[in-house]
Amino acid sequence: MKTFTSVADIGSLTEAIAEARAIKADRFADASLGRNRTLMMVFFNSSLRTRLSTQKAALNLGMNVIVLDINQGAWKLETERGVIMDGDKPEHLLEAIPVMGCYADIIGVRAFASLTDKKADYEEQVINQFIRYSGRPVFSMEAATGHPLQAFADVITIEEHKTKPRPKVVLTWAPHPRALPQAVPNSFAQWTVAAGYDVVITHPRGYELAPEFTAGATIEYDREKAFSGADFIYAKNWSAYADPDYGKILSTDRSWTVDTRSMALTDNAFFMHCLPVRRNMIVTDDVIESERSLVIPEAANREISAQTVLKRMLQSL
Amino acid sequence: MKTFTSVADIGSLTEAIAEARAIKADRFADASLGRNRTLMMVFFNSSLRTRLSTQKAALNLGMNVIVLDINQGAWKLETERGVIMDGDKPEHLLEAIPVMGCYADIIGVRAFASLTDKKADYEEQVINQFIRYSGRPVFSMEAATGHPLQAFADVITIEEHKTKPRPKVVLTWAPHPRALPQAVPNSFAQWTVAAGYDVVITHPRGYELAPEFTAGATIEYDREKAFSGADFIYAKNWSAYADPDYGKILSTDRSWTVDTRSMALTDNAFFMHCLPVRRNMIVTDDVIESERSLVIPEAANREISAQTVLKRMLQSL
Amino acid sequence: MKTFTSVADIGSLTEAIAEARAIKADRFADASLGRNRTLMMVFFNSSLRTRLSTQKAALNLGMNVIVLDINQGAWKLETERGVIMDGDKPEHLLEAIPVMGCYADIIGVRAFASLTDKKADYEEQVINQFIRYSGRPVFSMEAATGHPLQAFADVITIEEHKTKPRPKVVLTWAPHPRALPQAVPNSFAQWTVAAGYDVVITHPRGYELAPEFTAGATIEYDREKAFSGADFIYAKNWSAYADPDYGKILSTDRSWTVDTRSMALTDNAFFMHCLPVRRNMIVTDDVIESERSLVIPEAANREISAQTVLKRMLQSL
Repeated sequence: MKTFTSVADIGSLTEAIAEARAIKADRFADASLGRNRTLMMVFFNSSLRTRLSTQKAALNLGMNVIVLDINQGAWKLETERGVIMDGDKPEHLLEAIPVMGCYADIIGVRAFASLTDKKADYEEQVINQFIRYSGRPVFSMEAATGHPLQAFADVITIEEHKTKPRPKVVLTWAPHPRALPQAVPNSFAQWTVAAGYDVVITHPRGYELAPEFTAGATIEYDREKAFSGADFIYAKNWSAYADPDYGKILSTDRSWTVDTRSMALTDNAFFMHCLPVRRNMIVTDDVIESERSLVIPEAANREISAQTVLKRMLQSL
Repeated sequence: MKTFTSVADIGSLTEAIAEARAIKADRFADASLGRNRTLMMVFFNSSLRTRLSTQKAALNLGMNVIVLDINQGAWKLETERGVIMDGDKPEHLLEAIPVMGCYADIIGVRAFASLTDKKADYEEQVINQFIRYSGRPVFSMEAATGHPLQAFADVITIEEHKTKPRPKVVLTWAPHPRALPQAVPNSFAQWTVAAGYDVVITHPRGYELAPEFTAGATIEYDREKAFSGADFIYAKNWSAYADPDYGKILSTDRSWTVDTRSMALTDNAFFMHCLPVRRNMIVTDDVIESERSLVIPEAANREISAQTVLKRMLQSL
Repeated sequence: MKTFTSVADIGSLTEAIAEARAIKADRFADASLGRNRTLMMVFFNSSLRTRLSTQKAALNLGMNVIVLDINQGAWKLETERGVIMDGDKPEHLLEAIPVMGCYADIIGVRAFASLTDKKADYEEQVINQFIRYSGRPVFSMEAATGHPLQAFADVITIEEHKTKPRPKVVLTWAPHPRALPQAVPNSFAQWTVAAGYDVVITHPRGYELAPEFTAGATIEYDREKAFSGADFIYAKNWSAYADPDYGKILSTDRSWTVDTRSMALTDNAFFMHCLPVRRNMIVTDDVIESERSLVIPEAANREISAQTVLKRMLQSL
């Protein structure tokens, strides 16, 4: 595997899930595979779970890890040719990225959406420049439009807990005080459809996601109908995708907060969220603390999804 | 050993000191004990010695190390249930701490006293939340009320240099321009009493430490009397513990600075301080640079105290 | 090797280059040499290439690496004796540096020139204090007046590409919007002269470098004459060295930008720069992107120069 930004990169999802389960059963089985191999983790945005879980996955494989924090906004890379670089951008990406490639065998990149330039965001300009210019396998640690390591971990978690071959999996929008990217819901929709689940997405009007990510899922504006009979409820906030509201908050309606009343509509569903989560905005205390909450197992599976991706990239070197 | 915050956690201090000496004699003897084990070091406050020495100790044991710097104040964890998290706290400790536990085998925590909320400080709210919710062995890298890795290193250093079975060890307050926590003097008093030394604490009136830490030590307000016949002088500044002055500076009296004149009252005592030290506030240049100064050996023994604690925690996994 | 700040420390440059080539051919041949040895990298200034390449070199040798970022200006070390430390400097170098030495086997230091105090800069006060007080081998990761790891990498690169025994190597000043130190041109001049090349330095009047670094090179104010017949063009900006203009920008004349017109004067020269580079200030897009550009190979050789130095230091322990 040379790039990992989308479900298409993982090949057979069934095989990938089986491989992930084998890794989880014995996570040090390949502790010599990464010997003398270096992972470079490049963060343009802050990170807790991704930083820790990806680093742990690489160490499980015996890799060396170098972490590079690009202070948010502090290291401005020039991207255009022909510009006289006499301003605040001290380096051009055409030098910076190949240089990083000199010292790494595999590169992970975190670069969030701007939410101000939809075209740049959905062209995935930052991570695609790494793919094009680094000369190394590159994987997303959450890019502008997708968070595939999270979605892969979510699918592994659903596989571990589902009791039906084709569970009803509901992605529900929930309120949040800040404008958030669409990366997590985009990838969750894409991966759960690929996993063959009955995927329903519910949100207030205006919050429609990009069709290339939600193809195969049912959009259901009636939240009660969406929750009815659900096996898994996956809550997440996102800002508007559709023009002219791209990146905007259209609603903070707390009737969309997941609570015991709405969970009662489901078929005793599990509750999921990628974390960090705003309690009593996204979900009430009692739901997230209930026995049906999977938020910690999901986080634990981030190590497994990252290790599966890194293992495949190491094998391709 | 599952927690390390106090001298009570170390069990027999005599055995712990013997173990520390064996580690110092061959610090790579257990280089495979930590194989495939990960230490997570969580810093809520900045650190030089603790960061370096603890990391070195873990590497000596063959562990992987992940360092997590929580920028001071930047990552505000919600701690209450029921709060609608629509403000500046993006994550609840009930998720954040178990997640860290997912990726670590052992967790070290540095979280200083606020000096504004005595109850929260002396209940050790932050580190106790890690102990309760992480599911992992947790050790203090200096918490609100104690710094046991420092005190353990100090006792190791005294053992290496004492010439009497029961030396006179004097903890003396000294002036400093900023308000400092009581963590270091609290632990020093607790550990040196436990080591069976003749412990005397001297300070201006109003600087009395919490009795639960100083039990067994003699409080001597007459500094000359305290220094008389001392074998070890341990200087340290701290702010007031007693109400209503908790966390305040009551004195910057430079007659409490340790100098050659006051050292002349001792029995050719060694000089000790945990560092960093303000010269000519806490101690004069000539005393800290003298042949009787142990400040660098103390710092070097931080690696040994940390390695002893980590070794025991690894053995308990 | 106990210190590495200058070409004199490397001994026979011919032997060092041969050793570097052997390392490049098999960079994991000495993967056990650094077992249980710790490199501490101390950064007083920010770093991309040096941070990554030096860390990679140490990992290739099986070392443990601890990175210490001293926030620029945030950790002020007192350097004078006798000062009453009641101000903003919390620690004295006489404690801080020996403490770092406690936990490291080898120390790398990055500490740029102030450009405001020429005497302090050219006495190399910071790195010399590490050499004097740490008790460990110390190497420069760019100090005030030199950047020997860069110059060594540059010489390795020239050796890999030269087609004549004694190529003409031209160091040319080029414009830049900020005042930069003389460290890179100083070391480049010193190392290329030591390598036996025909070294020519060209710059506007007023930009003369310190004679102790340029001895053996020809200073040629006529840029066209300097470029004529050159085999390698090494572009770099620097601020004035000569009094009373030390640290100042005397020119931003873009006629000194390296472009295809000036490259046409050469003998089909290779283009070199240490990076990061301001395009269309230092060099035009087409020159830096041409097949004769060596900027990425130079960066890749930073891993090799660092590994050669670390290997020798490890052998001397």
